Amino acid sequence: MQITLSQLAARFALEFEGDPALVLAGVCGLSDDAAGHLSFVGADKVLATAAASAIPAFVTRPGKPVAGKANLFHPHPEYLIARIAALFAPSQLGGAAESQPRRHPSAVIADSAEVAVDASIGAFVVIGENVVIGPRARIHPHVVIMDRCRIGADCIVYPNCTLREDSELGARVILQPGVSIGGDGYGYVLHEGRHVKIPQLGRVVLEDDVEVGANSTIDRARFHETRVGRGTKIDNLVMLAHNVVTGEDCLLVSQVGVSGSTRLGNRVVLAGQVGTVGHVTVGDDVTVLGKGGITKDVPQPGVYAGMPLKPARLWRRAMARLYAGLR
Amino acid sequence: MQITLSQLAARFALEFEGDPALVLAGVCGLSDDAAGHLSFVGADKVLATAAASAIPAFVTRPGKPVAGKANLFHPHPEYLIARIAALFAPSQLGGAAESQPRRHPSAVIADSAEVAVDASIGAFVVIGENVVIGPRARIHPHVVIMDRCRIGADCIVYPNCTLREDSELGARVILQPGVSIGGDGYGYVLHEGRHVKIPQLGRVVLEDDVEVGANSTIDRARFHETRVGRGTKIDNLVMLAHNVVTGEDCLLVSQVGVSGSTRLGNRVVLAGQVGTVGHVTVGDDVTVLGKGGITKDVPQPGVYAGMPLKPARLWRRAMARLYAGLR
Amino acid sequence: MQITLSQLAARFALEFEGDPALVLAGVCGLSDDAAGHLSFVGADKVLATAAASAIPAFVTRPGKPVAGKANLFHPHPEYLIARIAALFAPSQLGGAAESQPRRHPSAVIADSAEVAVDASIGAFVVIGENVVIGPRARIHPHVVIMDRCRIGADCIVYPNCTLREDSELGARVILQPGVSIGGDGYGYVLHEGRHVKIPQLGRVVLEDDVEVGANSTIDRARFHETRVGRGTKIDNLVMLAHNVVTGEDCLLVSQVGVSGSTRLGNRVVLAGQVGTVGHVTVGDDVTVLGKGGITKDVPQPGVYAGMPLKPARLWRRAMARLYAGLR
Repeated sequence: MQITLSQLAARFALEFEGDPALVLAGVCGLSDDAAGHLSFVGADKVLATAAASAIPAFVTRPGKPVAGKANLFHPHPEYLIARIAALFAPSQLGGAAESQPRRHPSAVIADSAEVAVDASIGAFVVIGENVVIGPRARIHPHVVIMDRCRIGADCIVYPNCTLREDSELGARVILQPGVSIGGDGYGYVLHEGRHVKIPQLGRVVLEDDVEVGANSTIDRARFHETRVGRGTKIDNLVMLAHNVVTGEDCLLVSQVGVSGSTRLGNRVVLAGQVGTVGHVTVGDDVTVLGKGGITKDVPQPGVYAGMPLKPARLWRRAMARLYAGLR
Repeated sequence: MQITLSQLAARFALEFEGDPALVLAGVCGLSDDAAGHLSFVGADKVLATAAASAIPAFVTRPGKPVAGKANLFHPHPEYLIARIAALFAPSQLGGAAESQPRRHPSAVIADSAEVAVDASIGAFVVIGENVVIGPRARIHPHVVIMDRCRIGADCIVYPNCTLREDSELGARVILQPGVSIGGDGYGYVLHEGRHVKIPQLGRVVLEDDVEVGANSTIDRARFHETRVGRGTKIDNLVMLAHNVVTGEDCLLVSQVGVSGSTRLGNRVVLAGQVGTVGHVTVGDDVTVLGKGGITKDVPQPGVYAGMPLKPARLWRRAMARLYAGLR
Repeated sequence: MQITLSQLAARFALEFEGDPALVLAGVCGLSDDAAGHLSFVGADKVLATAAASAIPAFVTRPGKPVAGKANLFHPHPEYLIARIAALFAPSQLGGAAESQPRRHPSAVIADSAEVAVDASIGAFVVIGENVVIGPRARIHPHVVIMDRCRIGADCIVYPNCTLREDSELGARVILQPGVSIGGDGYGYVLHEGRHVKIPQLGRVVLEDDVEVGANSTIDRARFHETRVGRGTKIDNLVMLAHNVVTGEDCLLVSQVGVSGSTRLGNRVVLAGQVGTVGHVTVGDDVTVLGKGGITKDVPQPGVYAGMPLKPARLWRRAMARLYAGLR
């Protein structure tokens, strides 16, 4: 795909300056320094670098033009570049071909499944009994969707994902490759010295606009449901155990582990490799720094760190004291 | 499935009180508060909550009836509810259809493989040369079982698992989706500045009643075998490296990593995100709290924590001292 | 496969002593104590154990024969045994059959893909538009290779791996089962209280001789590329985020997490469960002990530990002081 500066400005209703006929072939980062591409400047400190680059055009804040370049003005350059990138994505990622819905003849689809006519079903996909696949959903090759799952409109499920029985995805949910939804929760009862499996009869619900990173796992509930709130974004290799409930707009970064029955509020941010014990409640607007360990309820908003978890301010002081005078 | 109170009592030889004709449609947790379901009470402190719920029937300890409800009596309510849940599972999880063995025509099965007549083989399953699949095993769609693997009776292997060459599962082993068994161990020898791969010629053995959680990985041994002892339960995203040997009835919680050639005794419990170095031995009945780091042998039973690992009691005192007086 | 002592000596041009006609059926570790096999001795302290074993032959350093055994002499016994093990691997791992290239009829290969005539393509493999598969590459069953990927000569891709669009593997790259290459990076921009997805338009490049362990994930870059340098070896369940660049000959042990845009130099060793924040630079020859947390640039070579990261020497002293006097 190629687009001119003026076409882009028209499409997003932007003020601009520079040659209206300038042709842009893609978007790039400032450090990529790619001729023919569009980048963005979100802070004054990189204006000079931008001006010295080979990049011909930038999205920048009103009143902050990049000297000698074409400029498109928007108060939130990074947000706008994300929207423009989505425009280029079909050609950069080969999505154009995928935009034509198709059902690969090798897919095995139960007669009782309802698949929207404009959904795409890739090679070797397996769709079980009574599954519902919504409009424009794209199910990539090698996805297994077991009985009674429901996939909302505009979902994208990448290859090698498994959705076990009764899993439910809202609208616009994205699963990166290898995600497991609805595996049995880790539940056993000790009886006469042996761990006896507790059947996991519940399900998993991912609400609208949730994204789950590659090879992450979200387990089905013991009886009722595991639920991820609207707009929550989950990175790769994250584990959500049975009966976990997260609020909306949370960020769970790579390798986070949330133990059984723990509840997260809205806008909770768990940085990489954070872990929680089970059966605790983390309130709205709590942020935990990388590798933090949550061992009890965290009702107050704020930034926390360490294991056991402390306010980040205290953790930093404790670390400073721990190393004081050592050399 | 629906069952009456008296039928349930008869099936498990239980004393009961309440309407024998009460119809139960499933099992639930106390917090699910589901009409028409059966739940359980294992502690006095929740008796009142149970009595105030919409749940019509409970398993409870003898002499501890839930007021105003139907009661089934058993000394270990949680154990009994697990057994009853297994009764309901076929209908709640759609297992009924699966109980009829079938071999999907799309499966690719080597002529030399021996598959029990009552095993189920799902769509697109690949079974290599000289593989043996035991009675009543259920191999779900998209499982790859490479040459010479042996799968015991009543195993369940969920979608997208890979069993590399020579892997062996005992009876009743369960692999949740995406598990990798028998990937090459991480072994290299430094030679002239380069890491030269050491071929990994050993295998993996999971003994009877082992369960492995979604997307966990257990690597083949360098020469001989990696072995997981009978009844050991492994959660999601756990890593067992080459030549690891675990005892029986261990619990390895999510995101645990056990490095090469480390040996765990019986009934070892490693909580979430615990890690070990390689070539150490952990004795019977050792428990390590979440995020603990095992850096040397742990011969004595007990509860440990921290990195480096300490008795949990000392770790708690050290943490108290670390934060003392800070605010 | 079976080979005699003299045949083995001739093949690798080794001095030897013992019965030239001694038949060897495989390689083993010292602790495996396997009759009929070959093992190795790399240190004086195990010479006596070797002499007392049932193993009939050893690779050992010149001038360090194992008493009463056949001996093959080489200055680097562990390196040589790795090479000899590769000789035995085809029979021990069933690779012989695989050495005949074949294209399984069930594979779905786009017309525009170029697959080398001597590459092997397993059952149910999916190969997208404009993919290039190099000579002698072995693509195991159930691998999905999306549009425009390039796979170099002699690569091995094990089952259930996904390579998303535009991923590139150099020569001799090995992906263990379940690896995800090219999943979307974890990138969002906060806009009006919601996390808006930033399309991830870049790609992933793994240079020659890289190996990636089971179920690890390497994300595509936001705009340009994520790159793993030649000879770097990655263990299981490792996460490399978008825009990460690693140098050559690094070792990234199991469950390591490297956050977005972080750069590692050459010969960096990150032990198990190490994590880094994003946008930092780690210099050549840095080693971080298990569970270490990298929170800022680490320009100097050396051994580091702890979270926050400190020179390992300081970390050990701090830990000693932390626990001093506690009991």
